[in-house]
This record gives sequence, C-alpha cells and structure tokens, in this order.
Amino acid sequence: AVRLRVREALGAREPADAVRVQGWVRSVRSQKEVLFLHINDGSSLESLQVVADPSLEKRDLTFGSAVEVQGKLVKSPHRMQNMELQAETIRVVGPCDIWSFPLKMKERHPLEYVRQFPHLRCRNNTLGALLRIRSEATAGIHSFFQDNGYVHIHTPIITSNDCEGAGELFQIGVSSAKESAEKTHFFNVPAFLTVSGQLHLEVMAGAFTHVFTFGPTFRAENSQSRRHLAEFYMVEAELSFTESLQDIMQVMEDLFKTVTSTVLSKCPHDVELFHKYIAPAQKVMRVTGKNCSPVILFSSSCRISYSEAVEILKQAPQTFTFKPEWGCDLQTEHEKYLVKHCGEVPVFVVNYPYDLKPFYMRDNEDGPQHTVAAVDLLVPGVGELCGGSLREERLPFLESRLQRLGLTDAYQWYLDLRKFGSVPHGGFGMGFERYLQYILGVDNIKDVIPFPRFSHSCLL
Amino acid sequence: AVRLRVREALGAREPADAVRVQGWVRSVRSQKEVLFLHINDGSSLESLQVVADPSLEKRDLTFGSAVEVQGKLVKSPHRMQNMELQAETIRVVGPCDIWSFPLKMKERHPLEYVRQFPHLRCRNNTLGALLRIRSEATAGIHSFFQDNGYVHIHTPIITSNDCEGAGELFQIGVSSAKESAEKTHFFNVPAFLTVSGQLHLEVMAGAFTHVFTFGPTFRAENSQSRRHLAEFYMVEAELSFTESLQDIMQVMEDLFKTVTSTVLSKCPHDVELFHKYIAPAQKVMRVTGKNCSPVILFSSSCRISYSEAVEILKQAPQTFTFKPEWGCDLQTEHEKYLVKHCGEVPVFVVNYPYDLKPFYMRDNEDGPQHTVAAVDLLVPGVGELCGGSLREERLPFLESRLQRLGLTDAYQWYLDLRKFGSVPHGGFGMGFERYLQYILGVDNIKDVIPFPRFSHSCLL
Repeated sequence: AVRLRVREALGAREPADAVRVQGWVRSVRSQKEVLFLHINDGSSLESLQVVADPSLEKRDLTFGSAVEVQGKLVKSPHRMQNMELQAETIRVVGPCDIWSFPLKMKERHPLEYVRQFPHLRCRNNTLGALLRIRSEATAGIHSFFQDNGYVHIHTPIITSNDCEGAGELFQIGVSSAKESAEKTHFFNVPAFLTVSGQLHLEVMAGAFTHVFTFGPTFRAENSQSRRHLAEFYMVEAELSFTESLQDIMQVMEDLFKTVTSTVLSKCPHDVELFHKYIAPAQKVMRVTGKNCSPVILFSSSCRISYSEAVEILKQAPQTFTFKPEWGCDLQTEHEKYLVKHCGEVPVFVVNYPYDLKPFYMRDNEDGPQHTVAAVDLLVPGVGELCGGSLREERLPFLESRLQRLGLTDAYQWYLDLRKFGSVPHGGFGMGFERYLQYILGVDNIKDVIPFPRFSHSCLL
Repeated sequence: AVRLRVREALGAREPADAVRVQGWVRSVRSQKEVLFLHINDGSSLESLQVVADPSLEKRDLTFGSAVEVQGKLVKSPHRMQNMELQAETIRVVGPCDIWSFPLKMKERHPLEYVRQFPHLRCRNNTLGALLRIRSEATAGIHSFFQDNGYVHIHTPIITSNDCEGAGELFQIGVSSAKESAEKTHFFNVPAFLTVSGQLHLEVMAGAFTHVFTFGPTFRAENSQSRRHLAEFYMVEAELSFTESLQDIMQVMEDLFKTVTSTVLSKCPHDVELFHKYIAPAQKVMRVTGKNCSPVILFSSSCRISYSEAVEILKQAPQTFTFKPEWGCDLQTEHEKYLVKHCGEVPVFVVNYPYDLKPFYMRDNEDGPQHTVAAVDLLVPGVGELCGGSLREERLPFLESRLQRLGLTDAYQWYLDLRKFGSVPHGGFGMGFERYLQYILGVDNIKDVIPFPRFSHSCLL
C-alpha cells in the first residue's frame, strides 16, 4: 500500500486502490451501517474522512488516538471534500486516554485554555494552523531575501556587546553547580543574550552589500503585555550604498507584501480560520481587504514625521496619560491615536529626536543634533512592527557621539568600519511574532510562538 | 545609470551604456595609458574589472576603499572574464586607511591571521566565500525540508529543561546590575540555553508528523578543540510513524546530498576556492569525488553496529589511549580508526549500549537493557556529523526508565505524549558547522561561523 499524507490524499486527482494513511483521530461517528472517522496528520487543516464497516470499530478507536488506515481512496460524494478513504483495515497505533486528555472532540477551545498545555496545544486546530502559517512565513522570509541577492548571516546569540544599552539584558553564566567565580569567566568577559543582530550585520554589509538575519532575540523586561516576550524572533536586514530612508521603507513594504502573499497562497484555509474565528470582524477587513490581498494594505499607508506626529497628538480632542511633547517617546496610546488618525492604516513615522535614539543613527543635520534618520512602522492593533534607520557612516560624527557617551573604547571595532571603506548604509528589524499577530488578528503574542517565554514563565 | 551588482555585471549577456557599480576596491594597477581596478561587492567571489583613463586616478583610490563607478559595460577582451566596465566617472565613497587596515592587497592571508579581526575578516576572499556558501546551505536546508512536507518549528532557546543531563549548560540570569536574588527568578525556575530542540520537536511531531528545526544550540564545555564551539547551529528533524533506524539514516543521507548539490550548483567558484587552497589534497578527493559530486560520497558509505565497531577496534594493529571495551563511549581516536578501517568513507554506527545513551532512546529488547536504536554518522576528518535514534514510544518502558533515574516528575509532560496517541517515531540532529567543515575541508570549526564563541572568547 502506498503511504500518503492526509494533504496528498485530499488533493489526489484519481482514485487509488491500496492506500495507507497514518494520523490522529479528530472525530469518530458510529452509525448502524457505517463508521465515520476523521484523520488528521498535521499536513493540512482539513482531515481526511474515512468510511468503514462498523465491524472495524474498536474500544480504543477514540478521539486523539493514533491510527493507521489501509483501504481505497475514492471520490467523495460530498461537495465539501474531494476524496475519502474506504477503510479495509484500521489499526490503533497508540490509544488516547480521553478522560485525562485536555482536548475534547469537536470543541473550539479558547486560546487561553490551550495555552495551559504547551505540549499538547499544537494538536488543536487553531495552534496547528498557526504553526503551519509560521512555517510558511519563515520559508517566505528566507526566499524573499535570497531572491533579492541578500546573504544570510547567523548573527551571534551570545554577545559581549551590551549594544544600545536599551532594554534589560539576560546575562549568561555556567550552570549553578559550578563555582560562582566561574560564572562571568567562561568567556573571560560578561556575556549577554543578543537584543539585536544589527551591529554584526553592519560588519557583514561592509563585505556583502545586502545581508539579513532571522533569529531569536531577547529582552529581560518584566512585562506581562500581550505584545512582549522575553524570547522572540526578529528579521533584520542591512543595506550598504543606501542614502535614503525611503529605500529602507521600500524594503520593509516589499518584504511584508511578498511574505504575506506567500502565506495566503500556501495556506489559505489556515489563514481563513483566523480571519473567521479569531480576529475581530473589523480587524480582518483592515488586514486583508476585500480580496484577502495584502497589497491593499500598503496601498494606503501613511507617512509622517515625528514632529508632525507630535503636532497631531497635541491637537487631538482627547487627553493622554502621557502628555505629548517634542523630545519624548511615543507611548502606546500615542501610537494608537496616530494609526486611527491616519485611517487605521500602517503609518511610517520618520526623523526622530537625536537624543531619543541610539548612537548609531545618522544625524539629519537639520539643526544642532536635532533629528536622526530613523523610521518606525506602526500598524493597527499591534503598534510598532518595524524599526529602522540610516546609520552614521561619517567617522567624525560617530567618534564625537561615542566620546560623549564614554563608549569610544568599547566600540573601536565599530569605528574601524568607518575607517576602512565606509559607505552610507541603513537597515531595519521586523518583529516576526508581531507580524503574525498583525496578519492574523491574534490579540496575544503568546499565541503566535510555539513555546512562549515571558517573566515568571518558561514551560518545558 | 542602471545600478548593477557585480555578479549581475559579470553575468550580463549584452553590453550596456549607462551602468553604475558600487563596491570595494580589491586591486588597483596604474599603467601609463590605463588604470585597472577590481571591484568586489560580495555578490560573488569574482571581482569586476574596471578599465579607466589614468586621469581618473586619485590619492584615496586605494585597496579597501569604497567606490562608485559609472560607465559602459563591454565585452572583455580577456578569456577569463565575460564583461568589464569602462569607467566614465569614479567616486571614492569611503577611503580606506591602508596602513592600519589589516588586510593587504592580493595577499592570501592564513585563516588564523584573519580570525583576529572578526569585524573585517568577511572582506577576505576565503571568509567571503565561506559565508556565501553558508548562506546557500542554510537556504538549501530550509528548502529540503519544506519540499518534503516538514513543518518548521522554532524550538525554544531558553528552556527550563536540562534535557539529557548531557554536557555543560549555560544558565540565564538577568543583568548583573540587578539583585543576585532575582537572577534565578525571572522565569521563577532555573533557565538554561538549549542543548537540543529534540524534546520540543517530539511534541510537534505528535501533531504535524514531520517537523524540523534549524537554530543555535549551546554547550558550556571548556574545550579548545577544532571541532567544538560554545554556540553552534544544529539541524534537527523528527518523524512520526517511523519504525526503523534505516528511515532515519535515509533522511540524513538525502539531506546531505540535496543540500550539498544545492551548494555546488549555486556557488561553484566559492567551493572551488576551498578545494584548491584550503582542504588538504587527499581530503578533497574524499569529499567530492572526481566530479565534485556529493552523491559519490554516500554511494560508498558503510554501516556497522556498535558491537562490530568494538570488535574492529579490539583487533586493530595499533594501541589506543583509551582501550576499546564494550559499554564504553567511542573516543575520537576510535572514530578515526573506524573511518579509516572502512576506507575513509562515512560510517553509520548503530545500536549502542543502553546505559551509554539518554533515557529517551528506544530499547532494542535484544537482551535485558542491552542496546538502544541509536545511530551516529562518522565522517572522515570531522568525526561525528549526525546523531539520531528511535525514541521510546512505549509508556511502560519510558516510565520505568525515568523512575530509575528519578526524573518522573520533571518529565510528566513527556510521558503525556505517550498517553495521548503515541506513535513510533525517531529523529536526528546534524551539526551545521561540522557539515561545512566536511564538505569544504576546513580544519578549524572557528572558520566556518561568522562570530565564533568558545571558552575564553566572545569577540564583539
């Protein structure tokens, strides 16, 4: 018998005689004359219908059990399904203790409920669909950059670089069984989990022109927010010979559109599940437009400067907890208002105050240390999706800024990049989980990653 | 002027009038009547030859400087190069202080030398080629699994699971500025950097049947070996409904062949550089065969059991530092001998002693707790490239083993996987850096990763 995945069986053009399908039982319906099963193996959201003689029923053929079915693949009489399997034999490979199994047949468990079972929730339709989408989006990101001549770089996870000084860092030690003296000494220097691969990508952009990375990044922030994780994935790109923020924004937009198109074409049913049952109604319209086309999204994006943003906020007919003021960070409430003000479309905010941003951002020279060439992309429902900037490529500017910050010694290697063939360059990062939240309309970031890590929680 | 990458310019079919190329100068040769430059932008190993009037020469047009050249792309009179650029303008975008620049024009720097400059070594031909190959191999790995119906899973980097108890673990704390009391409490439990995504992949194989991960893994081993890093990349796959080690070995072999074919076809010149100048002569033959075909490699692989391996070692006409004995781990010297004994081809060693291997490996029942269904793939010059096993899917076997080890409480979730639709399954991991070492003939693992981390070293 030919072994077929459920997806292959469902998509078969022709009936076939000796077919073998393996998977887990999603439903059992026993009638007088016929036994119906639905078998799922994770290759698709849809399960394969198995039709069998009631004599094949067994006590341990239950919801959740693992089975192997052999039989004939035939055209299904049902309009909704192309093929079904007429069983000749059904073998229960592994039974399922349904009384202690936390998932129940045909029940739509809330995301909060299945989150309690990190080792079983992937067997739930919603998480199954999510992880297939995540997998296709991952492949789509690699293809996008590969197809556009970018070299992929594994930027380091452990770094001696505490970078922007931004955010709380996780520090690395050797296992607690060892002497505490050894803790900081494995690498001879204090070592941290990376918060961004940007500086390492800049090294590589000086050799390969266009580079990208896509890996885990970390923040030890004590946050229980629905938009933050201690461990999350970031896509980052860096482009040499780039003199305008517009070029960076264009890559953000192209990346978004290309990856979203891939996801929509590769797993339409998985995406549909989210838009039908998970995302609030108006959010779906926002994300996908009438024809589920991601292009519509960016056709109406909006671009404002930070200074304009502050003016819009000051003139807002509502009061904010944090009073908007030029020179202060935009808060979540501000971001929300700006997105609403622009008509619930993605908003690029450019040219932030010099003193708000890290040392590596490029001075716009529109006044003495007034603004830098930075851009944030804010999207409805999620807030900041991408952040990028032109980098300061001019040695004297960078030297004096590092000197004022007392960082000259730590960043000699970074200054070197400006001494040996420096070029105008820039780049950006996109939060992968926020991207998934946005295109699928998922409220809580914990539901778009297989094993969420956040303060007070590290299950498995 | 149309902006072209060097690779595009070199591969152009037709001459073109207004072309702009940006990159870094790899050589300058000034003659009386003509000025020759070679421009590299990292898109290929080859540089583009620029021909210019000597009047375009400038003081800062040196090796390592960044330039933008505009002119005409014409057929090259040289047999070795397809196209060359006749410069109309040459702009030095960023000069290079050649006196302090550690790379020198036309010099073949040893790998040990460039390793001292982690922020500049990617501008060296060898490391440039390596990182392009690494990028293509990465894409090839994603494609291989995607094309074969595997779902990609981001297994967690931070885990509360100290897994096999094997190897030294890095522990996570919050930045040292914080109270030491908080150190272990960010996650409420001690948290570590992952040594393997296997157990998390097993969770996912119970929903998607075939899954893979490709990410960083960590060992806090105090080793200065040419085969170990503290941070390295591992490709791991897990397959449900798999009852034989042979299936696992087949996937290892298919993965190896497919990815190697991709690399050879995508960057033949980069690979050639290694085989010509880096790998010892006989190693090249071993790796690639006469026609650079990776298929040849595995056509002559060898398969022996652990017990046979010990017999071979006992009968060896040489003395080992570690005396070979059934029940003891194979040492590097043993692995070397076995590979030599089999004719310098890859060797699969199967069925290891029960007590040598972690709790999750499947009992072969060939005696009371005698051997488990494990496989290691040893390759010439590198040693262990892959390790895999069937996993113990039978609840009673696993329960009694965990009980004896006192791990029952910690692994309740893992036992759950055997209570709810358990299936025969297995998987393997392949060390990505060792894979690169093997196909390229690179002696030291520090030279196949962009930013190597090992004991006493965490640069940048």
